[in-house]
Amino acid sequence: MQIGIVGLGRMGGNIGRRLMRGGHDCVVYDHNPQATDALAAEGATGSQNLGDLVSKLAGPRVIWLMLPAGKITEDTLNDLHEILQADDVVIDGGNSFYKDDIRRAARFRELGVHYVDVGTSGGIWGLERGYCMMIGGDEAVVRRLDPILATLAPGRGDIPETPGRAGRDPRVENGYMHCGAVGSGHFVKMVHNGIEYGLMQAYAEGFHILRHKESAELPENERYTLDLADIAEVWRRGSVVSSWLLDLTAGALASDAGLERFSTEVADSGEGRWTIEAAIEEAVPAQVLSAALYTRFRSRDADMFPERMLSAMRFGFGGHKEFPVK
Amino acid sequence: MQIGIVGLGRMGGNIGRRLMRGGHDCVVYDHNPQATDALAAEGATGSQNLGDLVSKLAGPRVIWLMLPAGKITEDTLNDLHEILQADDVVIDGGNSFYKDDIRRAARFRELGVHYVDVGTSGGIWGLERGYCMMIGGDEAVVRRLDPILATLAPGRGDIPETPGRAGRDPRVENGYMHCGAVGSGHFVKMVHNGIEYGLMQAYAEGFHILRHKESAELPENERYTLDLADIAEVWRRGSVVSSWLLDLTAGALASDAGLERFSTEVADSGEGRWTIEAAIEEAVPAQVLSAALYTRFRSRDADMFPERMLSAMRFGFGGHKEFPVK
Amino acid sequence: MQIGIVGLGRMGGNIGRRLMRGGHDCVVYDHNPQATDALAAEGATGSQNLGDLVSKLAGPRVIWLMLPAGKITEDTLNDLHEILQADDVVIDGGNSFYKDDIRRAARFRELGVHYVDVGTSGGIWGLERGYCMMIGGDEAVVRRLDPILATLAPGRGDIPETPGRAGRDPRVENGYMHCGAVGSGHFVKMVHNGIEYGLMQAYAEGFHILRHKESAELPENERYTLDLADIAEVWRRGSVVSSWLLDLTAGALASDAGLERFSTEVADSGEGRWTIEAAIEEAVPAQVLSAALYTRFRSRDADMFPERMLSAMRFGFGGHKEFPVK
Amino acid sequence: MQIGIVGLGRMGGNIGRRLMRGGHDCVVYDHNPQATDALAAEGATGSQNLGDLVSKLAGPRVIWLMLPAGKITEDTLNDLHEILQADDVVIDGGNSFYKDDIRRAARFRELGVHYVDVGTSGGIWGLERGYCMMIGGDEAVVRRLDPILATLAPGRGDIPETPGRAGRDPRVENGYMHCGAVGSGHFVKMVHNGIEYGLMQAYAEGFHILRHKESAELPENERYTLDLADIAEVWRRGSVVSSWLLDLTAGALASDAGLERFSTEVADSGEGRWTIEAAIEEAVPAQVLSAALYTRFRSRDADMFPERMLSAMRFGFGGHKEFPVK
Repeated sequence: MQIGIVGLGRMGGNIGRRLMRGGHDCVVYDHNPQATDALAAEGATGSQNLGDLVSKLAGPRVIWLMLPAGKITEDTLNDLHEILQADDVVIDGGNSFYKDDIRRAARFRELGVHYVDVGTSGGIWGLERGYCMMIGGDEAVVRRLDPILATLAPGRGDIPETPGRAGRDPRVENGYMHCGAVGSGHFVKMVHNGIEYGLMQAYAEGFHILRHKESAELPENERYTLDLADIAEVWRRGSVVSSWLLDLTAGALASDAGLERFSTEVADSGEGRWTIEAAIEEAVPAQVLSAALYTRFRSRDADMFPERMLSAMRFGFGGHKEFPVK
Repeated sequence: MQIGIVGLGRMGGNIGRRLMRGGHDCVVYDHNPQATDALAAEGATGSQNLGDLVSKLAGPRVIWLMLPAGKITEDTLNDLHEILQADDVVIDGGNSFYKDDIRRAARFRELGVHYVDVGTSGGIWGLERGYCMMIGGDEAVVRRLDPILATLAPGRGDIPETPGRAGRDPRVENGYMHCGAVGSGHFVKMVHNGIEYGLMQAYAEGFHILRHKESAELPENERYTLDLADIAEVWRRGSVVSSWLLDLTAGALASDAGLERFSTEVADSGEGRWTIEAAIEEAVPAQVLSAALYTRFRSRDADMFPERMLSAMRFGFGGHKEFPVK
Repeated sequence: MQIGIVGLGRMGGNIGRRLMRGGHDCVVYDHNPQATDALAAEGATGSQNLGDLVSKLAGPRVIWLMLPAGKITEDTLNDLHEILQADDVVIDGGNSFYKDDIRRAARFRELGVHYVDVGTSGGIWGLERGYCMMIGGDEAVVRRLDPILATLAPGRGDIPETPGRAGRDPRVENGYMHCGAVGSGHFVKMVHNGIEYGLMQAYAEGFHILRHKESAELPENERYTLDLADIAEVWRRGSVVSSWLLDLTAGALASDAGLERFSTEVADSGEGRWTIEAAIEEAVPAQVLSAALYTRFRSRDADMFPERMLSAMRFGFGGHKEFPVK
Repeated sequence: MQIGIVGLGRMGGNIGRRLMRGGHDCVVYDHNPQATDALAAEGATGSQNLGDLVSKLAGPRVIWLMLPAGKITEDTLNDLHEILQADDVVIDGGNSFYKDDIRRAARFRELGVHYVDVGTSGGIWGLERGYCMMIGGDEAVVRRLDPILATLAPGRGDIPETPGRAGRDPRVENGYMHCGAVGSGHFVKMVHNGIEYGLMQAYAEGFHILRHKESAELPENERYTLDLADIAEVWRRGSVVSSWLLDLTAGALASDAGLERFSTEVADSGEGRWTIEAAIEEAVPAQVLSAALYTRFRSRDADMFPERMLSAMRFGFGGHKEFPVK
């Protein structure tokens, strides 16, 4: 099946590669000509600009955008709005906010252009493992994209079957799901990332407790110096907390027990924040997901004004000056 | 290898079965004679009481306790203290508090009896999958137990190897780990359970947000009715949040989308609480693990006094009476 | 000074009363004619509708809206947009979202109409104690309103002076503050309410711990049956946690120790939610303020799906069925 | 009334001064002779050691300990255990853990010596404002101490009376309360401090949100540069969040808007930790109080291992390297 791909970064480039390996015909464009050339060298049809890409696709076209969420995606969709035609399909495979999908889709609908949002998980591993995809849009259009989606998805692999799924949509077990109307794909992916933050923080706190068990402030006979790499490894094997994130942790710790080469400042992307905003809109308590997000905020805060306020209050009522003022 | 097993409940019985399948010779005792008889019928040597069990074991003995943490374990260890002899080994495989291990081991040490603590994960799945074990005690004694531990452990199975582990203790990859001195096995298992709470709560919050996305309080064009069972399933396949807990969730949702048959009151065991206490002793922040524990407390609170206090304050400053007083 | 007041509910009516007591001339309107008549009977000039109110005010007019945030405020402002004239001042004294202020003010600015936002604290106590006001808008316009603001504010009263404030804006010590440009008044009031949630929850948790100290699950010699009303009272007198919220709590507990007449379902207004959204926009961790908000969400959740998920997972890995399924 | 005072630091010295001003006869001892001499110069009877102090007191004696909780208090009580006689009263006015009170009181009871615990709030302000006291012990003994307690307490002052307290214990309104059996005084004081942490953190988070509202990352028309000192001041006057902690905050900000002279590392004392442990023992959710404690832990953590773990996982699944590795 023929497909246009716009945005050939880490994710977009590999999506193109996986599609070509699956026998699909990719017309590609990146604002960086070297990226375009690189994929062309692997068998894709390169293009000079959006118009060139569109002209090289037979109608009704299918165009997959894999761009950073925000202004770049918005601008590109605005440009495509000028040149796409009725029954073309535009797919936003990036990490857009689902309310932007709803707004954009309404605008494309006036032209008869179909808008599909795909939340794509799998990161740098997707090329080999396949991409887990959460999809929003009209059912008939999503069905039309099935050859592409089936190629990108991981497939059943050797993951054990879940009992009780007889009669359910078999696409899901292949790793892609039509979640509902436009925006629902990105919404489900957003919550996925919110959960991801929570899981990561749960591991981080637990390993922090393990690591500090050698603290000299504890009674001497209650201290242990624990091998965190071995603990992560043994938990991969039959324990309740086994997971892919634990696999990655075990790998990181095996080669660098103190994780010294990693940053103490942790970025957060839009999805974590939007998840909390969604929880608040729905009046759903999200203690753990919020706490995980806030830990990241805190990791990047150089101001530490709230701590100063606590110190100021303690000084105010108790004259406490335990710590050297810095 | 010969071993005595005391406590033949869900865990202890299956540990006996897995050991017998592995060719070990089990002498068993449970205060419920029917439990003893059941395992005897499967090939174990039954015994009438602790003294009988000890008399049927050749010295130096190895006795594995698989009893509820607390009074029963304490009483049984006190009884064994009277009858065990130098160089015997007593193993507490239950969920004891690690500080109890330290105290008990010191007392047994006076007799020359070795005390080993084993944190055992795997639950009802351990018979088939094997048990992930975290072990505390003297290295020579733990080595002596290796035939038993190797049988109980899951083994390497088809779990992918973690890169960078060359030269490390191969027992870990078979699913059991000698963590350190007495108590360290239960300490590591305790933190494992603390993490487990956090992971579970992260999923629960995320699925709560997904479920309430159909709420009538949201703008109509921003509502989705999402299939939670399919979402859990698709995330098992190539997503970042795949885990064994997610596998179990996918199974539960596949057959009962509203989980109506499950309780809204969630129990917590000692480990979750002890994990928070350990964090506090170490001055380690544990926002997520605490929040997860508190959610369980809250689920069982019929008093709801704090909520009444909030309502009383709101009434006090604002005359708010929005909700019918119940 | 002459002023129009739109919205004569609990807050708006008392604002009118306090202004009249201060010698101001109030022209009032409420969509409920009885509310209008009631205030007219106390000396205000009643009006039949917005147009009537505007016609009874000499230009340049000052109109204070005291309406529920949201649609009613928006509609009323739209109506006023049609009939106000250059140099008139419209004040939103309700609990509007500050971004709405920014948007609305821009629209009024095109007409030469000034928009001022006033976050008003004081609730049902404001008539006697005065209203603490946080104000956003142009300095010249806010100065023009000074006679009104000074009357509504509590004044210095017998609250001890804060050292170090020499040379600062004296309005602040009288209980009203010009915070900055349009929207800043409501923004500061919003954060005020966010803090209020956190303070309330801190007390609620503490008293919960005091109350459960008589629990039969504790060791018998560690139980106390504590008099919460007396504790609240004694803390009002020289302790670090004394506050107006504690005063209110002491009053509520004195007459109803179990607070049985108060609801277990706690409402939340927009400000608490917006505060968290502001924190997220600013990447500021707000653990306590979020936790306080979520407690309220949880108090109203009849679904308890997340708890069911936890129970389902516990059943999945451990066969736990401790609680009767409901 | 005659009283012995042991420990003449910031708190103990001022307690002696306030008692002498009230006409009481103080025999004092501090291990630092200069501290003893200083108080003797103000009218107290100095003593050389514990034995000397005891010998200078007429029986039945009353001795008030005002020492750091922990080893010093324990050692001093052990020494007093050797020399006190039946019907003497020993008072621990420090910040001891209430379970230590229960244990110590049982041991003194064997001698017929009465043990009373007093949780004392008021800090450096107590000399002038009086001390808010929470008292545990036998009613008859507490009554015997009334002359001392009444002098130390703030008295009614000009704090408005709480309605509905007719017929209740009038001591409470004078700022001291007999909470219950031994230990209950320190237990109530402990929870007081737990609440204090929560209140402080609520303010700190709110002011953090106010302060970052000028962040360059926000849309330009949504930024405000807010005067935090004025905001704290205006909230003291008629707002819902007025409190003594806010008074102190207003004072600190008035002279140092950025609080630059205060530490970013915030100490925590035992009470905050014990409050969480009490909550866990009682199965009471304490989200806010825990979050407040953890913020302090985090402020002193130089390791930042959990943050490194998050970065390592992000690198593992996504190749994220947004932040320079430090």
